Amino acid sequence: MNSRLAAISPSLIRELNRRKQPGDIDLGLGEPLLPPDTSLLAAALGWLEQNGCRYGPNAGLLEVRETMVRYLGYPGLEHPDQICLTNGAQEAVFLAIKAICDDQTDEMLIIEPTYPLYHKIAQLEAINVRNVSLPAADNFAFAADTILTALQPQTRLIVLCSPCNPTARIASEPMLDQLATGLLALANPPWVLVDESYHEIFYTAQEPPRLAKHYPRTLVAGSLSKSNALTGLRIGWLLAPLPVMPATLKIHQLLLTSASIFGQRIVCEILTRRLLTVHRPYYDEQRRSFTSLLERHGIPHLPPEGTFYVLAKLPTAWAHDSIKAAYHLLEKFGVVAIPGRAFGAAAEGYLRLSFVAPPQLLEEGVARLSRFFAAS
Amino acid sequence: MNSRLAAISPSLIRELNRRKQPGDIDLGLGEPLLPPDTSLLAAALGWLEQNGCRYGPNAGLLEVRETMVRYLGYPGLEHPDQICLTNGAQEAVFLAIKAICDDQTDEMLIIEPTYPLYHKIAQLEAINVRNVSLPAADNFAFAADTILTALQPQTRLIVLCSPCNPTARIASEPMLDQLATGLLALANPPWVLVDESYHEIFYTAQEPPRLAKHYPRTLVAGSLSKSNALTGLRIGWLLAPLPVMPATLKIHQLLLTSASIFGQRIVCEILTRRLLTVHRPYYDEQRRSFTSLLERHGIPHLPPEGTFYVLAKLPTAWAHDSIKAAYHLLEKFGVVAIPGRAFGAAAEGYLRLSFVAPPQLLEEGVARLSRFFAAS
Repeated sequence: MNSRLAAISPSLIRELNRRKQPGDIDLGLGEPLLPPDTSLLAAALGWLEQNGCRYGPNAGLLEVRETMVRYLGYPGLEHPDQICLTNGAQEAVFLAIKAICDDQTDEMLIIEPTYPLYHKIAQLEAINVRNVSLPAADNFAFAADTILTALQPQTRLIVLCSPCNPTARIASEPMLDQLATGLLALANPPWVLVDESYHEIFYTAQEPPRLAKHYPRTLVAGSLSKSNALTGLRIGWLLAPLPVMPATLKIHQLLLTSASIFGQRIVCEILTRRLLTVHRPYYDEQRRSFTSLLERHGIPHLPPEGTFYVLAKLPTAWAHDSIKAAYHLLEKFGVVAIPGRAFGAAAEGYLRLSFVAPPQLLEEGVARLSRFFAAS
Repeated sequence: MNSRLAAISPSLIRELNRRKQPGDIDLGLGEPLLPPDTSLLAAALGWLEQNGCRYGPNAGLLEVRETMVRYLGYPGLEHPDQICLTNGAQEAVFLAIKAICDDQTDEMLIIEPTYPLYHKIAQLEAINVRNVSLPAADNFAFAADTILTALQPQTRLIVLCSPCNPTARIASEPMLDQLATGLLALANPPWVLVDESYHEIFYTAQEPPRLAKHYPRTLVAGSLSKSNALTGLRIGWLLAPLPVMPATLKIHQLLLTSASIFGQRIVCEILTRRLLTVHRPYYDEQRRSFTSLLERHGIPHLPPEGTFYVLAKLPTAWAHDSIKAAYHLLEKFGVVAIPGRAFGAAAEGYLRLSFVAPPQLLEEGVARLSRFFAAS
């Protein structure tokens, strides 16, 4: 058997979910509960009825990729060959890491706190990893200096998630500009992979800025999962500079040939009908009421700039063991929340709360949470 | 960059297709041209309208896996946890190879002639491979002795494709029985992966026999791509003994989370309506007319037992360079056919012809082919 598998720890998030009992309030959820717009699915089905369901190019149907070039508004995306349609943003992340990093010579730098996926892929692929922690004292704001000073000659890929799961922070335009300037000054600038799974869910005045505007060696993973409540559809994309595409496509082809044509057509439909940010007002409303509840109950937290998460700061008694806190919260107070530790050492002392649940459940969840805080 | 990628040669099949001109007859096609039954797709859409499109378990929806246990008729498949729904049979093959083989210690044995995918996955994953060639003198019949004598202590996985692309041979019941007996006599029996992508397309009196009936350490990759003309849907499955499942699921989860819920529901629909072999009579008719044409034109070939391919034996002048023959056939006679060499050294001297095209194109294709044979 593949001897690297044993070292990859099972998902803390799934383990917590497994222990959930009826009546518990789930603030751990990492997916939309909104019903998707099924007219999009019907339109895609209509296309299949007309055109059948045959293999397309490995990268995806040309018409879909051309539509993405036209409507996605992604900086530097000028050619359909810069796109590979994938089985969700997850496959896009996997392709980028596996294509860019050589397991013998390269190192990947992961900006924490962050979604635990990147570390696990690196373990599976035997790729060296170093972590860079954004300090809690700065509310986990993305900082170019922190990243630039951590670079080593063997750093070939930097991975960051913005809007960030779990911190809900967004990398700012000046920060990305500064990062790009610092990287471009290097003799051999590394690649940067930005996981933009939450790009369409933001509460800032402007759409989240994009590194690709400043830095040509940027890859991005995106999907319809969060933006359009289509997690189960498993459709996403990798956008990358042309020189990277042959390597990523070769891996994509050997892994699974291509992404589902049905999913691809839904991408086309959503983009031409400009529906990518259609759920944003809903999440904005959810965010307002959830953070009001947290404030009313005096639960310290970081105001979210994007995503549907909030990091809440644990009481001092629990600050050194968020995993234990999360199990205690679940067992004694009936609330699922994700321990900060699941997102790296930097987020120890925090809980990730999601606000996708219906208002009455959010209210009851925060009430229970406040009893936990009061008892601590 | 990942240094292993450079060594993986581009697909000969795709390269030939790229050179195809308008008016050429395509006997290289590796996918059904039949329109799929769109009532299946509509039923799956109806389910999504009712249930949304959320993440399910990594392995696939429990109801779908339970339906597979009930209706698939796969020997030894007794528990839904023996199933992982995948992005086509291709992902299933990838998972099986990556989970079973350790790149430091193990060896994979590939039975040739065969589909070139398994070799390329091994290259990508740095897994040692040895080839076993079934002799052309026996019309590439699967032979247990040939496989058993090739085993070494480090052989951890044997890969075979039956019904076989490209030979169109099916491993017989006595052969599989003999193989199982031989393997079970070993101190540390290897795993066997059977690619059953063409299982539902057979011309023998009985359904193709299955190794799992005889040998418990069998994994199988299957899909709806060929059976139901749904290649673009990218839905398939890996069936495996319970002890192998945690490793394959861990990889599946890191690669892409799960297969599309839409595709999964179509599996359910096809199985409950017992439509998995619905296209078999059509291919049987195509086979009869195509092999009649070959006989009428005196083109020597192997009678197919399954799949939608026929191996034709090249004239002596071309027997040592099927690649050159295929390019010559395309450029001078306007016919796409796949050189045997693409499927391993054992199939040198042959061309793989497919019979998915409409009857009038098959007729014209064979007429052109016969002129090529006459001119050689």
